[in-house]
Amino acid sequence: MKQLVFGHKNPDTDAIVAAKAYSYLLNQLGYETEAVALGEPNDETNFVLEHFSEPTPRVITSASSETEEVVLVDHNEAQQSVDDIKDVRVTHVIDHHRIANFVTALPLYYHAEPVGCTSTIIFKEFQENNVEIPAKLAGLMLSAIISDTLLFKSPTTTDVDIAIGKKLAEIAEVDYEKYGLAMLKAGTNLATKTAEELVTSDAKSFEMGGKTVRVDQVNTVDLDEVFAREDELRAAIEAQNKDNGYDLFLLMVTNILDSNTRLLTLGSGQEVVEKAFDQKLVDDKMDLPGIVSRKKQVVPPLEEAFA
Amino acid sequence: MKQLVFGHKNPDTDAIVAAKAYSYLLNQLGYETEAVALGEPNDETNFVLEHFSEPTPRVITSASSETEEVVLVDHNEAQQSVDDIKDVRVTHVIDHHRIANFVTALPLYYHAEPVGCTSTIIFKEFQENNVEIPAKLAGLMLSAIISDTLLFKSPTTTDVDIAIGKKLAEIAEVDYEKYGLAMLKAGTNLATKTAEELVTSDAKSFEMGGKTVRVDQVNTVDLDEVFAREDELRAAIEAQNKDNGYDLFLLMVTNILDSNTRLLTLGSGQEVVEKAFDQKLVDDKMDLPGIVSRKKQVVPPLEEAFA
Repeated sequence: MKQLVFGHKNPDTDAIVAAKAYSYLLNQLGYETEAVALGEPNDETNFVLEHFSEPTPRVITSASSETEEVVLVDHNEAQQSVDDIKDVRVTHVIDHHRIANFVTALPLYYHAEPVGCTSTIIFKEFQENNVEIPAKLAGLMLSAIISDTLLFKSPTTTDVDIAIGKKLAEIAEVDYEKYGLAMLKAGTNLATKTAEELVTSDAKSFEMGGKTVRVDQVNTVDLDEVFAREDELRAAIEAQNKDNGYDLFLLMVTNILDSNTRLLTLGSGQEVVEKAFDQKLVDDKMDLPGIVSRKKQVVPPLEEAFA
Repeated sequence: MKQLVFGHKNPDTDAIVAAKAYSYLLNQLGYETEAVALGEPNDETNFVLEHFSEPTPRVITSASSETEEVVLVDHNEAQQSVDDIKDVRVTHVIDHHRIANFVTALPLYYHAEPVGCTSTIIFKEFQENNVEIPAKLAGLMLSAIISDTLLFKSPTTTDVDIAIGKKLAEIAEVDYEKYGLAMLKAGTNLATKTAEELVTSDAKSFEMGGKTVRVDQVNTVDLDEVFAREDELRAAIEAQNKDNGYDLFLLMVTNILDSNTRLLTLGSGQEVVEKAFDQKLVDDKMDLPGIVSRKKQVVPPLEEAFA
């Protein structure tokens, strides 16, 4: 009976790719496994799978209906796994998260390391077992590392992720910086969204000094691409303010690659924004270097300035 | 601050040795660690430590009083670990058991495999990190593998344990069969026990067909060594029967290396023992090849024969 290999629910690129990579390795070692997924791939992962002409994995909602043994990648906690995880035996885990809510009845193979990406650990597994990584699979694994580490720039990135990412780029013959930017851009996928979607999908309201302040955040890999649509965005924000009675609107456009934010703010109280961040708005905009967190870096100084 | 590395409570040879071996490796990799123990070494481990002139590890009862970070070997379940395990952070685990009752707040290094001995996995860790194993440490690690696998004969032994055990024997320049026998013998350590201790320390009573049947079991690596004391043992058994009113006494002397038992039986009802095992007693003794379990292989046929 085939063993199933899968990553966590609501899968990201690493969850999909690590399952494919480890399933390939296990099959080379004599196991009979199939990589499956606990959900549909996101936009970024679809870009990756299309780029390397790799099929989308089959989505399962139950494991015990087709196998007795499973392999977990990129997760171990039961609530992140398949619903009937308790009804199957976990024989292998490859992961880079904390261990919690995980119990086995029997000894198993478990390889976890505190690195940025599961695919980094799977690269080591290939090495330890002297199995060659095909170019296409190397491209997929590189994509997972780029995704989890935001092109080696997230604070979770380790030297090992960088070294292994670069080795995979060589095997895959991929220009990882150029490819990585395109891939992360596909993940943010702002081009397909309307200006109204951009100013509403992650917006939250705050009461400050008697005013209703609306703060929205959009992640991108290219600030200029977003601000090329500035006129559209201004119109959408003004409609939001008018229709919903917001006094002040702040749109944070955050570049996830260099951890900087450009702010566009419209409404009454712009001088309070200037006070909060100690700089002048130019054409209703200001750059906030090093600022990425609405909760920790934007709302507190705003509240203080309004008080 | 030094990290502490330790195996489980009531330590066996692998728990003591794996802590020493992994602490050595971590220190070679730049960590600052100390191998400690959660209890005094047993007779077998003392033999090993003396043989390789290795100091006995310091015994601790609390970790948090001297460090914030610990490394677990040969166990993961909290109830087998130091009492204040919840007050420290586990950064690494090397183990060959199931995972249960184990939770971390942060990602960690975890390497478990379903093999016979933790020291087998630690050998792989040395290889993966390109660190040479000193001859003395190889001897200790070989001892742990011999202990956990009963010289490659226990049902938990894997091909990997055997291959790595033999490599360690080469590095240590040890004749593993000769040394292993001496080591396991030191663990059974029957020579230091009186005949009365041997016939009482693991004896259990059973009511069968209106008779009180006493069954004792002694583990050894050398049946002849035990039966060289047959006169003493007979006297001790007869005293037991007389003083306690046992009708029939069975002493199982079990060779843990080849999984055979020699039975010495005294009292009334010897013919039932002959019936139970379908062979004649010679001088009150019989050999029972393949029989090692009192509970599963001796008591049931006896009960049936008495019924």
